[in-house]
Amino acid sequence: MTYCVAMHLADGLVFISDSRTNAGIDQISTFRKLFIFSTPGERLIALQTSGNLATSQSVVNLLKQRCAGNGVNLLNVGSLYDATALVAETVREVVCRDRTPLSDTTDLTCSFLVGGQIAGGKMDLYSIYPQGNFIQATPDTPFLQLGESKYGRPVLDRNLTYQTSIGTAVRCGLISFDSTMHSNLSVGMPLDLLVYQKDSFSDAKIHRITHDDFYFNRIRLQWAAGQHEMLAQLPEPPDNYFMPINKVVSA
Amino acid sequence: MTYCVAMHLADGLVFISDSRTNAGIDQISTFRKLFIFSTPGERLIALQTSGNLATSQSVVNLLKQRCAGNGVNLLNVGSLYDATALVAETVREVVCRDRTPLSDTTDLTCSFLVGGQIAGGKMDLYSIYPQGNFIQATPDTPFLQLGESKYGRPVLDRNLTYQTSIGTAVRCGLISFDSTMHSNLSVGMPLDLLVYQKDSFSDAKIHRITHDDFYFNRIRLQWAAGQHEMLAQLPEPPDNYFMPINKVVSA
Repeated sequence: MTYCVAMHLADGLVFISDSRTNAGIDQISTFRKLFIFSTPGERLIALQTSGNLATSQSVVNLLKQRCAGNGVNLLNVGSLYDATALVAETVREVVCRDRTPLSDTTDLTCSFLVGGQIAGGKMDLYSIYPQGNFIQATPDTPFLQLGESKYGRPVLDRNLTYQTSIGTAVRCGLISFDSTMHSNLSVGMPLDLLVYQKDSFSDAKIHRITHDDFYFNRIRLQWAAGQHEMLAQLPEPPDNYFMPINKVVSA
Repeated sequence: MTYCVAMHLADGLVFISDSRTNAGIDQISTFRKLFIFSTPGERLIALQTSGNLATSQSVVNLLKQRCAGNGVNLLNVGSLYDATALVAETVREVVCRDRTPLSDTTDLTCSFLVGGQIAGGKMDLYSIYPQGNFIQATPDTPFLQLGESKYGRPVLDRNLTYQTSIGTAVRCGLISFDSTMHSNLSVGMPLDLLVYQKDSFSDAKIHRITHDDFYFNRIRLQWAAGQHEMLAQLPEPPDNYFMPINKVVSA
């Protein structure tokens, strides 16, 4: 399994990915799921991926290899929209190549989030479905997720808007990962975190969070303690809230 | 879809169910998913259910009808274990009856949570799988869920233990439902809430939460506001937390 979240905010973009892959519960590995294509000062394009690892690795490898050639590639496309279409086209290419009788019963599909900015254009964030078509984040829906999205969604739903500051969004995203890792063993450390400042084209920064990350451990403990306290502070129900059962049912 | 949670605590049992059923997004109805079989002063048995509505309604109807007869039924079984086995047996009976060529492609299965206490025995809580076998809640795992369980799980994982008081557990459960209803339209009001005090055999009380429930709306607003504040109070990462991207990657 995988969990990735990407946020398109007024001030910038935030990407967080886990790095656990598994084929069954007893075959667990670590693979980075966040990839960056950048020409400092001119463009930054980030990819996140979930799904079949062989497919997504081939897609990223082909996209990288082609950056050295003269054809259309992620370092020369003119817009984020075109970049996303190129990633989607490469997914289709790999799945068509690998879909042989040998792989008959295997799900070869994968999903991608593609976000960034190219000089002259605006910041954008897209989600490519396994089918190859894609949608775009908007101010109404400022975040997109891949993989095991449900455990970590309530904290995003309750707190994240297009106007949320980058700093708060990062912390909200980290809590979302903490919630997910509590409940699903197939989402795991290390986490890769990328923050991009709007219109900077080079002011992007990354961090890899491992088990001994002091900051991450501090905020997850503070969040858990804060929840305990909040729960204790919620009021009791009013006196007449419940009805005795024997007035209501008789079997 | 459905969401039900049941908690087995040191001091008692708590059950919360939603009441939305749907066949597609445009066919939504309200059906109670919490059922009570009780002989005041002697036994209380609560059932919660998810899955095929025709099956679960037939199971509950047969269980009720048979309480009037002389055979083994939920008002005369000697233990919660036997009550659970009887519910599971009735599920198998209904699925076998209704599984005909007419229902070939339909999933007829359903799941039940069964909890309560019978005089002379201890409090117990079981979860019956669609296959008809069942597991039991223990102090290590004091809550069981049915249906759309993921959105509402982190707040339970972080806060609920066997020693949690009934009052706190009720509030924790209500927040878990609030999280779920935020994110999944197929889980919806009204909610049915049942609280049973250990060794009381009659001190059970219920409440139905509708959209204008003042108490529920108060705690969900207080929780959301508290989360905003907690997020704002989380510390900033240390100065050297991030690395500039151009020192790390070049495409």
